[in-house]
Order: sequence, then structure tokens, then C-alpha cells
Amino acid sequence: MRIAVARETEPGETRVALVPELVGRLVSAGYEVAVEPGAGRAALLDDQEYADAGATVSDNALHGAGLVLSVQPVKPEALRFCAPRAATVSFLFAGRHADEVAQRQSAGITTFAMEQVPRISRAQSMDALSSQALVSGYRCAIVAAGRLREFFPLSMTAAGTVRPAQVLVLGAGVAGLQAIATCRRLGAVVKGYDVRAAAAEEIASLGATAIDLELPTLEGSGGYAREMTEERAQLQRERLAPHIAAAHALITTAAVPGRQAPLLVTAEMVAGMRPGSVVVDLAADSGGNVEGVVAGSVVNVPTATGHGSVQLWGGANVPSQMPAPASRLYAQNVVNVIQLMTRDGMFDPDLNDEIVAGMLVTHPSLAAQAAPTEIAPAETVDTPERLES
Amino acid sequence: MRIAVARETEPGETRVALVPELVGRLVSAGYEVAVEPGAGRAALLDDQEYADAGATVSDNALHGAGLVLSVQPVKPEALRFCAPRAATVSFLFAGRHADEVAQRQSAGITTFAMEQVPRISRAQSMDALSSQALVSGYRCAIVAAGRLREFFPLSMTAAGTVRPAQVLVLGAGVAGLQAIATCRRLGAVVKGYDVRAAAAEEIASLGATAIDLELPTLEGSGGYAREMTEERAQLQRERLAPHIAAAHALITTAAVPGRQAPLLVTAEMVAGMRPGSVVVDLAADSGGNVEGVVAGSVVNVPTATGHGSVQLWGGANVPSQMPAPASRLYAQNVVNVIQLMTRDGMFDPDLNDEIVAGMLVTHPSLAAQAAPTEIAPAETVDTPERLES
Repeated sequence: MRIAVARETEPGETRVALVPELVGRLVSAGYEVAVEPGAGRAALLDDQEYADAGATVSDNALHGAGLVLSVQPVKPEALRFCAPRAATVSFLFAGRHADEVAQRQSAGITTFAMEQVPRISRAQSMDALSSQALVSGYRCAIVAAGRLREFFPLSMTAAGTVRPAQVLVLGAGVAGLQAIATCRRLGAVVKGYDVRAAAAEEIASLGATAIDLELPTLEGSGGYAREMTEERAQLQRERLAPHIAAAHALITTAAVPGRQAPLLVTAEMVAGMRPGSVVVDLAADSGGNVEGVVAGSVVNVPTATGHGSVQLWGGANVPSQMPAPASRLYAQNVVNVIQLMTRDGMFDPDLNDEIVAGMLVTHPSLAAQAAPTEIAPAETVDTPERLES
Repeated sequence: MRIAVARETEPGETRVALVPELVGRLVSAGYEVAVEPGAGRAALLDDQEYADAGATVSDNALHGAGLVLSVQPVKPEALRFCAPRAATVSFLFAGRHADEVAQRQSAGITTFAMEQVPRISRAQSMDALSSQALVSGYRCAIVAAGRLREFFPLSMTAAGTVRPAQVLVLGAGVAGLQAIATCRRLGAVVKGYDVRAAAAEEIASLGATAIDLELPTLEGSGGYAREMTEERAQLQRERLAPHIAAAHALITTAAVPGRQAPLLVTAEMVAGMRPGSVVVDLAADSGGNVEGVVAGSVVNVPTATGHGSVQLWGGANVPSQMPAPASRLYAQNVVNVIQLMTRDGMFDPDLNDEIVAGMLVTHPSLAAQAAPTEIAPAETVDTPERLES
């Protein structure tokens, strides 16, 4: 069977779903691999590298393909030359693409959504939300260090001591913990906050201080946070305010792709920071944790004192800012998914498998009218707010 | 006596020669401190902070001042309202400002050049070249980490391992060592090279690998490197080439302000790097260690294979990219100089003191015709190439 790797078409998307070093694993498993020309270009991967690894590079890569790999979902019309009953593996966010999901369902396409890989230990190696969050968390810390024109580390010099920067990270999921770890590596004094009590230990294990706002924790099922009331959110903002005012850099990571991010920081709280401070909002794509953030832009917010301003950086498809490592990790996740779905040397997903079932969005066996318009993993449907995956 | 702090006028200069937290030390020593309005603005220091610290903020700060502090040299015409026989303390680089030096000499002004503080242990706390190099070295590493779209650290994930970035640092003076330390903090695999044999130990002490090119070392006097022949320079470039080709990020720091930087890396060597690689040239202001570099710009150099390009970043007044810490360190150096020059509660520099004498460029006791047009510290006049101070 042919596995096709699509060239991404969404503006700003620089990743690719398969990297040359993993072509061999699919070939060894008995698949033919075809790649659309230029698929890896934005991730600095050359067509020749794919060819050298054993793939065919062709404009017709999708023609007759039984499985199509991509990062963003391929448009249904681009799938019309695929083999009958072809399958796709990509991020989908079905809620944003209801029409396309319906088209896929009526065309008999099988759709697996990478963001729906269940958060169980057997599926960790397939968890693309986590792998991409790792990239985002690192990137956020580096962006903060680059935009803040102060030293992150303590420096002892003959002329005196330079104090380390104070960094505050809100949300201690994969991205938040990676941001904390990176800021700590650079020597900053880091505080972290998460509504889940379990996060405090993880924050502390990285050498950061876990902030305790003396509010009830919101431990939900499956490691996610429960929804909070507006009253609690207000209290949380009030108690966070002095910590934010004391920070040179604030990194917010309370987001999950495809959902509205919770507002953690008001414009007033940003204006209360010192001149030259930096706010990096990883959740900007989904509305932002910080009031006034614009995804893909830097907004200069004047401080309340009228002296200087605070830089508010809004992340837009942050993993695409590091396309090469993000692609390598995503491709690894995808190849692990394919291996799970390969039985007796054939692409034969077991729809009774918890992971396969969790990822499934459209399939000929599902009634067309049952095609879901909003999909969420089973364990999160009751947790409208969760701190990034 | 009044000490005046000048507002910098050179484009791109964001530092200020005195910070509010150090005003008190001068006031305690018996001086009056006057600051030109907005002097600290670019370094995010407000006039009110200076006033609160005990300084006068006034457009006429220089009027009647006995000592004028600045980062870049104040124009001679701006000094005409100062007290008779006023003195200045700033960077000067007399070789670049021969006319101004002559004007200062004929106007009876005493000029102390911060870059001429001798490199002796008693003067370490006054060594502004070192303190600013520390800032530059940190900044270079952060710029490299931000521009390279790969992870610096090794990351172990459920989906596989992300290999750490390979960084090569050329020149292991203060800036180079700080760049090495910062890249190491971030987890990169770092190699360092310096023509001085003594540098190898310092490089290794930071957890980096000192490259041995099996060339004769160029240990000169005073911790500087001796000049090398073109033949040796050619051999050095040839032997560095494979190390450069293997690096994701190359940071070059072989520069000393006011001198022509040695060419360490040719355009061909840059083109031999992999796509997406980053070159950060701290020496761009003085001609560059890397062929084709442009100070204050990023040049995209196509790779030799035709796939992708290498980013070549040219530093321009790099300490001004971190104006607040650079100003704090510089101000500390300057205040230490003033304390050295204060005797019996008066500003009374002892021209027989090795440090004072080393810094002196113009003085009424010097004959006008003897005003030097190129000044270098005594211990470096025979070392035309040295790896940054």
C-alpha cells in the first residue's frame, strides 16, 4: 500500500508529517512511501533526502494512496484521487472543520485525528499534542529570553553582581514545564502556577517555586483541570497580580488547541508590569490567556506609570517556528500510530483498540448523519478548561 | 564639584553612564550630580528615579560641571559651558576621533578613556571593555538560540530523542567565554577555539571542548594574542572549516573595539554550513570575523548545495541591545574610576597612578602637538590582533 506525504498548504504551516530518517521504518513495514515535491522544504528537508531514504517524490503522490499523512488536514477535494476507502492521519480539530468532516464521511474516507490520541501511557509515543507542546514551551522561553533585555542568569562580575531575571509561568502542562525548565537552565528565578495541585510538585522538581494562591484546586479527571467559576477566576487574577507585577517575563501556556483559552491576565495586570517586561502568550491562537494579545504579533502595552511599555508577544502556530524538530517529533508520533494500525503486514486499524477508536472521526462504518461536528477525547468532554495538553 | 551625566546622542547608543542606584555613592563622596533630561530613557530609567536618588535633572546639567560622564565621547562643543579644566570619562577610541582629541587638548580639557583602563588586577572593577563584553557574549548566545530553529538542549521524549545543537565559539575572551557558558547552560554541545593556549583550560572549565588545530599558539604579553602571519591564518581557516561545517550555530568574538577584526571565516566556509544554520559575528562593528557580515543586519547566505541558506547576523553596538544591565555595569566601572580619582574628598586624579595614566588622553600638562591620534594601552601596542577584551 502507498502512504502519501502531503505538502502543507495552510499559511504559516512549516512542518511536514514525515521526515526522511523515518521513511525506512515504513518501507521496512512493507509500505511504499510517496512524497509531494517540496513537502519538507519549509522544514529544511530536501526532496533528494526523501528519495535517498527510499521514498518516491512525485506530484501524483496522493494518487492511489491508501493512507495520507499531513500536519494540517488535507482538503477533501485533494483526496479524490486516493485509493477507495483511503485513510488520513493528521491534526483535524473537527469542530473547526465541520463541513470537511461531513464531506470526508460521505466520500467514505477514514479520518484519524492526531489530537484525539488518548492520554494513556501506551499512547505516549503517539501523543502529538505533547510533542508539539514541548517544542512550543522551549520556543516560548527562548523568545522571552531574547525579547527581555536583561540577563536571565545571575552574573558575578568584578564591577558587581547582575541579578537574575524573574520569570513567571502560568500553566504547567507539557509546554509550561518545558518553558520552566528552559528558563531555569538559563539561570532565571522562576515561579510557576497551575490550578491543579499535582503540578506543584512538577514545578518544584524543576527548581522553580510553585505559587500557592490559597484557592481550592481544580483537579479533574485524566490529569486535566476542572472548569472554574467566574468568581474563582476573578479571585485567581487578583491573587496573581502581585506575582505578575514582580516578573520581568511572564509566559502563559494555559491553552489547548481547538478550545477557547481561559483569560488569566487582564490588560490592567500587563500595564502593572515594569517597563521593558515581556509577556509571551502561547495561547494566543485560541483567544489568549492575556487580554489584548494578537496571535503572530507583538503589542506594546504602555505601563500604568506612563514610562515605557511591556511587550506582549502572541504565539501563532508556535511549533512551526521550529519546523525541523517539530516535524521530527510529529513524524515519530505518526509512524508510531501507523505501526499500531499495521497488523499482519497490512494497514488494518483495529477499531476496537482504545487508541484507534479515540482517534477515529470518519469511517465508512459510521452513519453519515452521525458524523460529529465537535470531537473531543472522551476523558476531556467534561473539562472545558484544561491547561494545555 | 558637579558631575554631569550626558544624554547620549550617537544613533543606536541606548546606554547611560550612570544609573540611579549609584547616584548615592557619588553624593556620599561629596559630589553634586546633575543629569540631562532623558539620559536614561533608552535604558528604561526615568528622570524621576535620578531625582529620587539625589540628582538634579536639568537641561543645563553640563553647565559648570567639573566632570562629565558619558558612554560615547561628548562632542567638544558640548563641553564649552563646563567648568574650566573640566574632565570627561567615557569610551573614546581616540584613533577614530583625532580631530575631537585635538580640540579637547587645545580647550584644556582632561580626557580619560574607559577603553584604556589597564588590564591589571587592581583595575578589574573599572574594566568597562570586560563588563560590556560580558553583556555582548550573553546576548550573542541568546541571539543564536533564538535564530536557530533547533533545540539547544538534548530532549528525551516519549516519541524519541531530540539531539542537542552543536555550537562553535571562536575567540575565548570575556565575550567568547560568556557565550560558551550561556550555550552550555542551554544544553548545547559547545566547542571553543582561541589562538592562545591558555584559553583551552578556560573553555574546558565551562564544559565545552577546546579545539586543537595543531598550530603553534600565539601567546602574547598581557594575556593577548600575538599577530599571526597570513600563512598561519590560511592554515587556521582550513583546519577550522570542518568544525564550522558541523556546527548548527557559529559565534565569533575575536574583536577588540577600535581595531580591525581578523578574518577567521570566509564566505565559502559559511556556505558550507547546513541549511538553517546561524552565524553570529560579534566583531561586525570592526569589520567582522566573517566575510560578508554587515553590522546591524542579517544576511542570508545561500548554502553551497543550493538548498536553504545560512543566517549571518552582524552585531552593531551589541551592549546597547541590553541597555539596562550594560548601563549598570558600565556605571559601576565609572564610579570605581571616580573613586580612584577622588583624593581628600576632591576630584584629584593622580597622574602618576598606573590606571589614571593609562586612561589619560588629553590634559593641560600635555603639549598640544603631542596629542595622540591613536592611543592604545601600553601592553597591547605590540599585539595588533587580540581576541576581544
